[in-house]
Amino acid sequence: MSEYRGYTGTSLTFLKKSNVKVGDSVKITEDLTYLGILMPRYEHTDDKHIVLKLKSGYNIGIEVNKIKKIELLASEKIETKSSPQIKINSSLPKVLLLSTGGTIASKIDYRTGAVTPALSAAELNSAVPELAEIANIDTEVIFSEYSENLEPNHWKKIAEKLDSYAKSDYKGIVIGHGTDTMHYTAAFLSFALAGYPIPIALVGSQRSSDRPSSDAALNLMSAVRFVVKSNNRGVFVVMHHNESDDLVVGHIGTRVRKNHTSKRSAFQTIGGNPAFLIFDKQIEKNLEKEFFKQKEYVPKLNFDSNVALVKYYPGSNPKIINFLLESGYKAIIFEGTGLGHVGKIMYEVIKKAKESGIFMGMTSQCIDGRVAMNVYESGRDLLELGIIPLSDMISETALVKAMWALGNSKSLVEMKNLMLKNIASEYSD
Amino acid sequence: MSEYRGYTGTSLTFLKKSNVKVGDSVKITEDLTYLGILMPRYEHTDDKHIVLKLKSGYNIGIEVNKIKKIELLASEKIETKSSPQIKINSSLPKVLLLSTGGTIASKIDYRTGAVTPALSAAELNSAVPELAEIANIDTEVIFSEYSENLEPNHWKKIAEKLDSYAKSDYKGIVIGHGTDTMHYTAAFLSFALAGYPIPIALVGSQRSSDRPSSDAALNLMSAVRFVVKSNNRGVFVVMHHNESDDLVVGHIGTRVRKNHTSKRSAFQTIGGNPAFLIFDKQIEKNLEKEFFKQKEYVPKLNFDSNVALVKYYPGSNPKIINFLLESGYKAIIFEGTGLGHVGKIMYEVIKKAKESGIFMGMTSQCIDGRVAMNVYESGRDLLELGIIPLSDMISETALVKAMWALGNSKSLVEMKNLMLKNIASEYSD
Repeated sequence: MSEYRGYTGTSLTFLKKSNVKVGDSVKITEDLTYLGILMPRYEHTDDKHIVLKLKSGYNIGIEVNKIKKIELLASEKIETKSSPQIKINSSLPKVLLLSTGGTIASKIDYRTGAVTPALSAAELNSAVPELAEIANIDTEVIFSEYSENLEPNHWKKIAEKLDSYAKSDYKGIVIGHGTDTMHYTAAFLSFALAGYPIPIALVGSQRSSDRPSSDAALNLMSAVRFVVKSNNRGVFVVMHHNESDDLVVGHIGTRVRKNHTSKRSAFQTIGGNPAFLIFDKQIEKNLEKEFFKQKEYVPKLNFDSNVALVKYYPGSNPKIINFLLESGYKAIIFEGTGLGHVGKIMYEVIKKAKESGIFMGMTSQCIDGRVAMNVYESGRDLLELGIIPLSDMISETALVKAMWALGNSKSLVEMKNLMLKNIASEYSD
Repeated sequence: MSEYRGYTGTSLTFLKKSNVKVGDSVKITEDLTYLGILMPRYEHTDDKHIVLKLKSGYNIGIEVNKIKKIELLASEKIETKSSPQIKINSSLPKVLLLSTGGTIASKIDYRTGAVTPALSAAELNSAVPELAEIANIDTEVIFSEYSENLEPNHWKKIAEKLDSYAKSDYKGIVIGHGTDTMHYTAAFLSFALAGYPIPIALVGSQRSSDRPSSDAALNLMSAVRFVVKSNNRGVFVVMHHNESDDLVVGHIGTRVRKNHTSKRSAFQTIGGNPAFLIFDKQIEKNLEKEFFKQKEYVPKLNFDSNVALVKYYPGSNPKIINFLLESGYKAIIFEGTGLGHVGKIMYEVIKKAKESGIFMGMTSQCIDGRVAMNVYESGRDLLELGIIPLSDMISETALVKAMWALGNSKSLVEMKNLMLKNIASEYSD
């Protein structure tokens, strides 16, 4: 972790010259005078500003060129030592908060003044004091990565960590996670930990803390409230429902998708309403069926990433399939058009892939709705070629499930049976 | 065209034995007696039924095993000769209806009793008599394909046909098209025919005519009404707006997506409202800016399909990019995560791709929202590696535009400039 994390150019030069580092308490004089802690920058569009967390808890950006004077009041280490101790309230349930990185972790840093993107219990309580009124929270850092950098082996690490807490006295577990691939991770955990005895909530933040519209604190409070109060086993994604601050929802981890690049309400349940509405004082349940289709907890934590997601489009090259076969791929999930089609141009190579013994499943790039391959001739042709229709399982979930099913099967028949079995509400019926 | 189109197994054997062919007028006796025309089957889930179009215009399915008697009343040719002649109303504008295949063409067949999925003017008028009150319609068949089988060369054929009518006296042109890839075709026409002097509407149908909920007739009427009344140049997709029969809308051809596998309201404008609401008596305009950003019509009909659409996901294999480079691809459109990211695992091969001189553009698999690659470190890394952010252009449109831009440029610089220029409202601002 750099002492000047995220600063470049003009602002970096200014900080070095002033002998001020991230985490230091400073007094800045420009037109007004500000007392606060110098924040690290995880989101940055320019090198002209530094970010200060004020005593009030708000962050502000200050233009370097307008600063008349900057004074070091206390260095970062002193601040860390002064972090408040956690008070345990024995009447409240215990919740475990795991951190994997992403904007939500950075955000907490911003508000606490810590210089690392990893959460600690003390940092957390001082950042979101409301949490201490909901649960006694233990925290643990699994790793610190933006979620676009996560790979299937990261999923497995998270699953192993959760598995180690399957017989704990926690009421539920919350996982802070980057939003880019949060739904892929949620799907893996849903399959790997089928039957897990306590609720798991993945939570993220779409807006970092140098914006007034940050959703991190409310999402986190709602996730903790959710695992404490819902009494529902399952893996859920807990995020803002709309652009106001009055409703956070819990989505089924296998039926959720990030459908907007920047909105706080980016996550949506596909083909239905969110499973839970999480209000300040109560939780409303929309989920009619059990999340897990099996009662006992039987962890299956392996994966095999030799699975490709292939989106079909006009001009698609059949040779891509040849390449996958030659590269040792064992399964292909197609994102077909409409009800689950690919053009005739792909038939020959699909036949070849089938003969080579790989699994081929069909989903739709329409995202919403159900694959139905017995309606048109194209679909029937593909069924005859051996492609397996995956009903309304969304393509990203089907990809993850195929990696998981391959990693936990001894044969293609067993893998195919797992793909068709509704394990964690990935099929909506 | 087979005389038994779509029939298999039990029903085919029955028809052959009875010497009855598709298009024949027959009298069928089971518990009740039916007079009607034997329909071809484009959608079929079993071989136990035959479909009859009754005099009333409705289709019914009759179970072969329950038929006591089938009598041939008139063979298909007689029926064709009896098609009503078109009456020309000189007070109405002229509209050209082109057909490329898909459910909408089959649908018209079902209702008229014709045995080919290609439209003719006579068949059309008898199927949807309301059309004759809106315009004098000429029809022409370009080809007859389900749209999942269309390739970029089909797009070009349609564009060439439209180009040949650029100086006609038509008020507008309607294109019947399968829905699976209608938005890809709409995007190509938008670029290839930029500045086209009269409105172009692509229209399709989500439900075939053996269902009471068919949307074919209303969509077609609305499309004709739209090109007659809107007075707006551009390429639009005209489809049902919801599940009721009271509103059809016109979407911008470069900002529309098929977002549901089966609903009549499957098509949606991404990131905004539909450009036009098409009511029975009037048309409401939401489109604030001109569709085409250039006034003069300058057709550019070429394409180069050496473009790949690459969706990034956890577990993505960088070797896919190597394969594309070795296969002569000239451009890659990434469907990144979130604001436009791919994992670090791809950086090395992206650098190599850049050095080999190919175009790489970034869109988001979130579908809605804008790529913003200067917010997080991941995005900034990718910008430095030479990936071009494509703002809020949707990935399918970006793919089609790259094929078009490559085919109509002499250099990578010219191609890149075309990619960044707003030509046909593909960028929403």
